[in-house]
Formats: sequence, structure tokens, C-alpha cells
Amino acid sequence: MKKIFFTPGPSQIFPTIPKHLKEALRKDILSLSHRSSRFKKIFYKTVDDLRQLLNIPKSHHIFFLSSGTEVMERVIENCVEKHSFHFVNGGFSQRFFETAIELKKVPFRHQVAWGDGFDFDKVEINKKTELICVTQNETSTGVALDKKDIVLLKKNHPDKLLAVDIVSSAPYVNIDYSFADLVFFSVQKGFGLPAGLAVLIVSPEAIEKSKYLINKGVNVGSYHNFINLLKYADKGQTPETPNVLAIYLLGQVIKDMFKLGIRNIRKAIEKKANILYNFFEESNLYRPFIKQSRFRSKTVIVVEVKNGSSNIIKKLTNKGYIVGNGYQKFKDKQIRIANFPAHSLASVKQLLVYFKKYERQKNL
Amino acid sequence: MKKIFFTPGPSQIFPTIPKHLKEALRKDILSLSHRSSRFKKIFYKTVDDLRQLLNIPKSHHIFFLSSGTEVMERVIENCVEKHSFHFVNGGFSQRFFETAIELKKVPFRHQVAWGDGFDFDKVEINKKTELICVTQNETSTGVALDKKDIVLLKKNHPDKLLAVDIVSSAPYVNIDYSFADLVFFSVQKGFGLPAGLAVLIVSPEAIEKSKYLINKGVNVGSYHNFINLLKYADKGQTPETPNVLAIYLLGQVIKDMFKLGIRNIRKAIEKKANILYNFFEESNLYRPFIKQSRFRSKTVIVVEVKNGSSNIIKKLTNKGYIVGNGYQKFKDKQIRIANFPAHSLASVKQLLVYFKKYERQKNL
Repeated sequence: MKKIFFTPGPSQIFPTIPKHLKEALRKDILSLSHRSSRFKKIFYKTVDDLRQLLNIPKSHHIFFLSSGTEVMERVIENCVEKHSFHFVNGGFSQRFFETAIELKKVPFRHQVAWGDGFDFDKVEINKKTELICVTQNETSTGVALDKKDIVLLKKNHPDKLLAVDIVSSAPYVNIDYSFADLVFFSVQKGFGLPAGLAVLIVSPEAIEKSKYLINKGVNVGSYHNFINLLKYADKGQTPETPNVLAIYLLGQVIKDMFKLGIRNIRKAIEKKANILYNFFEESNLYRPFIKQSRFRSKTVIVVEVKNGSSNIIKKLTNKGYIVGNGYQKFKDKQIRIANFPAHSLASVKQLLVYFKKYERQKNL
Repeated sequence: MKKIFFTPGPSQIFPTIPKHLKEALRKDILSLSHRSSRFKKIFYKTVDDLRQLLNIPKSHHIFFLSSGTEVMERVIENCVEKHSFHFVNGGFSQRFFETAIELKKVPFRHQVAWGDGFDFDKVEINKKTELICVTQNETSTGVALDKKDIVLLKKNHPDKLLAVDIVSSAPYVNIDYSFADLVFFSVQKGFGLPAGLAVLIVSPEAIEKSKYLINKGVNVGSYHNFINLLKYADKGQTPETPNVLAIYLLGQVIKDMFKLGIRNIRKAIEKKANILYNFFEESNLYRPFIKQSRFRSKTVIVVEVKNGSSNIIKKLTNKGYIVGNGYQKFKDKQIRIANFPAHSLASVKQLLVYFKKYERQKNL
């Protein structure tokens, strides 16, 4: 039985991936040296196309790292001498905060219940803060923060760097990169690629901060400090041997996304999200975990199930529809449904047919 | 034209890779969650099989990281408070040393000319040394250190940890893991996989050192510190979303290697290495870069070409035989030829036919 993965990442692969993999084999991408001129061309083209697709300003640098988790470490290492400030409302914003502690920084935290959003202007941010960290789309709970609020946050704190985690909302979220200093995502979510690559977008101010820390004698890491990443990116390379195949596949999927049109991709995600949320809103068995609709993620939809989610998850699995369970403490209470570009409208509708079926059975 | 890659990594893929990739697509490996029970099975099986293939003792832990370069960083972070000691004779042993400096340690170095080996017992190792770092197989120059000398090095310094870089000699080199505390390699070399994964093998003593440093308040990194890696490895996982596909492919290639037999694989490499070195020894145009035959790597064979290597490299490329150029300062003087399990005897012989041809043309 052919399965469809609605898991929040790794997730359903982009439909063209099998074709691109075949091509990669034919073109010897799997044997390609990361110091060769062919690799450099792939690197430059992928970076240029990504810049165009997401409207990333020329001022900002684009780096390839191995995971979103690695990015958190590199961002803290390179941009924080002592104090970062973290808005925490779920597992991944909490991890960002803990990363700072593990790296011997002294981070501040504004914490709300898992599933809540933030009113940024009501939060006092310590003056000593060097870097503000926000998780625009909390993969653990399905809370999304408004891109306009994020711009305002930077406008209100222009002297501080701003890091924005869009791990599970790219390329859907259309944020204004010129207002962010560090933005990052992983390719196994919205881009529908196999896991093992993350993209980090860095402002000139963040590069300057890294230089400042290096000059001050602060440990900013070795091969993946920003200055080293920049030195190699400028010549179309990475410091280490990277996941060459994933960089190639990312480039190919971006080309496919150009053909579809990024506006159409975003509209399709909104349409599917509306169908999903409307259904769960009206259900007696399921309900959206995020109460305030303005904080509901369009790309990771989290649903509570009366009397627990395990049974329904199993039944959906038996039909070949693989959804995510709740994150950590919500494991058996919630379902997480990814709504990425790789998920077709038809498969979302079919998923809802099964959700309805189990609701009817439950009500009998 | 079908190309054959004799580059020292990324290199020729193992012949079964296309088949395994097809299977991975069919089995939905590209969508597989790194927290699923299916992934855990793949993780445990790959680790168990690798342990058996390389004869790694049960006491030692096996971790998956993203590159050999990352491993150098993690090894220094987790095992050195102040002083590591580095035997430097090429680009990668030098990088290991520089990693320690970048991470604000105070490393010692015993340096010889690129291409030379070491007589370990003639080198005085500073008493304050916590970790000794040796590059068993220098990918930059093709120097290989004898596995018996490495065992003696540990026997003579039992109070110090020992790190051994076998990035480009695994699985050929049959080292005694019970005498090493940290051993690592990348999969895009001897295992013939696409790049983007490294394996680190860690002794209980190295884990203890990491714990000791954590308790002392030393920064040992965040998600990839040894204690965190161990916590996840014990449950068949990695802290971050890893390169799932590469872990799967590694498991499949190990199975293939069982079928061939590791002894046969090693014998075949020695046979090809002898053919190559014998040819270059007798040539008037080419000669092995490493003068002392006891230090000649069997897996990365480095050759000097009178009047420069660029022209011959181009001619070989035109025939579909892609060899590596010299490393950095030797770029246009040398040729690096990988001799991995994926390289057939027939292709090595054909490569030599072309080498002979260009020698004849040159002599005319």
C-alpha cells in the first residue's frame, strides 16, 4: 500500500523527488567532489534561486548546515556573548533556550503555556539582551506567530539581533527577511526533501557580531563559525564535505516551485489549512489545540482528540495515512498534521474522510 | 559516457547504491520519522552490523554525526579541557590541531614535512596532554601510520585519551578499537555512500571525560555533546533529525560487505594498491609521493608527476576516469587516487592503461 506521510517532518516527499534522484544518479551527483567546479555551480544556483523564491535581500548570506538543531547552536555561539532572550511556548523554543544554557550563556526567557501565542509589546525585554529568539512556527504545538508582529518586534528593538525559526513553515511563511538577522529552516519539512540539511540566512549585522566576538576571544565554534561559513560560501562551497545530494535536490525542488509559482503554493496551503481547521472546529470528537485562531499554524495543524489520539492514529496508519502523534507530553492526546506543499488537496480530503469515519464509529 | 570516480571522497559509489536507493523510495525511508520504531530498528541494526564488520568491542559507543570535520570539533569539545597533542603531517591532521585552537584550547603539536610519517617513540609528549590525536590515513598526502604503532602509542601513554582519524581508510584498516578512545570516518569514502554522514566510535573513558568536563562547568557543546549523543543512541536515535537516508544506506552497504567478506575486501584493496605502487615506482614520469614504503597508504595513493599533473588529470577526465588533484599546495603537482572497496580491479587496470599511454606520449 502506498503511504502518505502527514508527519511534521520528515514528511511526504515532494512528488518530483524520485525523478530527481534518478537524475542525480545519472549525473554522478553522489560522487561529486564538494571542491569541484560542478559543485560550485550547483551551490551558487541553489542559493540564487532560493533567494529569488523567498525574496531574500542581497545583503543576507545563505549557509548550509546539517540540521535546524545545529543552527540553534551556531546562532547562539556566533551572536551571543552572554545574553539571549527566548520566547518559549513549546518544545523547540524551549530547546533554543536550553542550547544557550548548554553553551554557558545566561539566557532570559519569557515563557507561556504550550500552545499559547505572544503579545510581544507587552513583554519587557532585558536591556542586556544581545539576541532575541522567536520560533515563528512551533512544530511541537502548531502555534504560529504573525510575521507582522515579528517585524514590529525588531522595529521596537533595533539594537538587538533577531533570530526567527521557520523550520516548519518555510517556504509558506512570507516573512520580511530584511527585518530578521538569522532565519532558518530544515529541508525535510516544507521542501519535501529527505532529512539531513538546514538553511541559515544571516544578516550583515549578525556577521559583524560574530567578528566582534572572535576579536574579543570568545569561542564561536570552529569549522562552522560564521566567518568560516562565509569564506567558503563566497566561493560556492562549505567548510566540510556537506550533504551534496540534499543541496542538489533542494535546487531541483526550488525549480519545480518556480514552475508552480510560490503564490499558488501558498494559496494552496491556506486552502487546505482552512478545510482542516473548519472540519476540526465543527467536530465533537476532535478540536484544534490552539484556541486563538490568529495563532494557528497553517503548516502544522495540531488537534486534540477526546479520550486520546493513539487509537485513531493507528487506524489512519492502517489506511496508509501517517500522521504525527502529539509532541512529548501530548503524545497520546494530540495529532499533528503537516500541511506542506507536497500534500495534495485530494490527499487532505481523503484524510478527512477517514477522520469523519472514526468520529462516526466513536459516536455510535 | 559512464564515469569512474577515483577521487579521494566523495568517490565512486558502492555498486549496489542505485538498487538501495530505489528500495529506499519504495520503503518510504525518505519520509521516515527519526522518532519512529522503524527508524530505531534501522539504527540498532546498522550499529550492530558495523560493530561486527569492524570488530568494535561492546564497550565502545557508536554515534552518527554529519561530517568528519564535525567529529574533530566534538572530540576536542568533549575530551579536552586545555591540552591536546597533535601529530601533524598533512592538511587534515593540521585541521584537527587548528580546531583545538579555534575552540580556545592550548594544543601541542609535533610537526613533520607533509608526506612524512612518525616514529612515535622518539617524540616527547607533554605530560599535561589529555588527548593524543593521530591521523592514521592522511587524505591530503597519502601517508598511513601503522596500526601496531598506534596501539604502542596508547600502551606508552595509558593515562591519555587517543583519537584516531580513519576517515579515508575505513573499512580497510583493521585497527584494534580496544586501544583507541575515539575513532572516526566518513561514509563517502571507503563505504561508497553519498556524502553527509560520519561515524564516531567512543570508549567509556572518553564518555567519562565528557562527564567530568560537564561537571566542571566546561562548555562541551549542546545537542551533540557525548552525554546527549549517548542518551539518544541508547534508544536508537540521534538528538537532531539526522541524515536518515545515509544511515539506511550505510546499513545496506554493510550487509553487502558481509556477503563479500571483510577479509576479501581488504585483500582486494592490497592487491590493487600493489599494482598501482609497482607501476608508479617503475615509471619515469610518475613516482609515489611517499618515499618510505611503510608509510604508503593503501587507500589513498598519491603520485607526483614530472612537469605537473594538470594535463594528465584532464586527459584522464576525458576518458571518464576522474582522479583527485593534489591537496592545496600540491594541487598541480600531484594526483590522488582513491583505492576503496567500490573500485574494481578491472577499473584500476584500465586506469593504468591510460597512465601508461600518457607516459608514452610524454616520452616521445
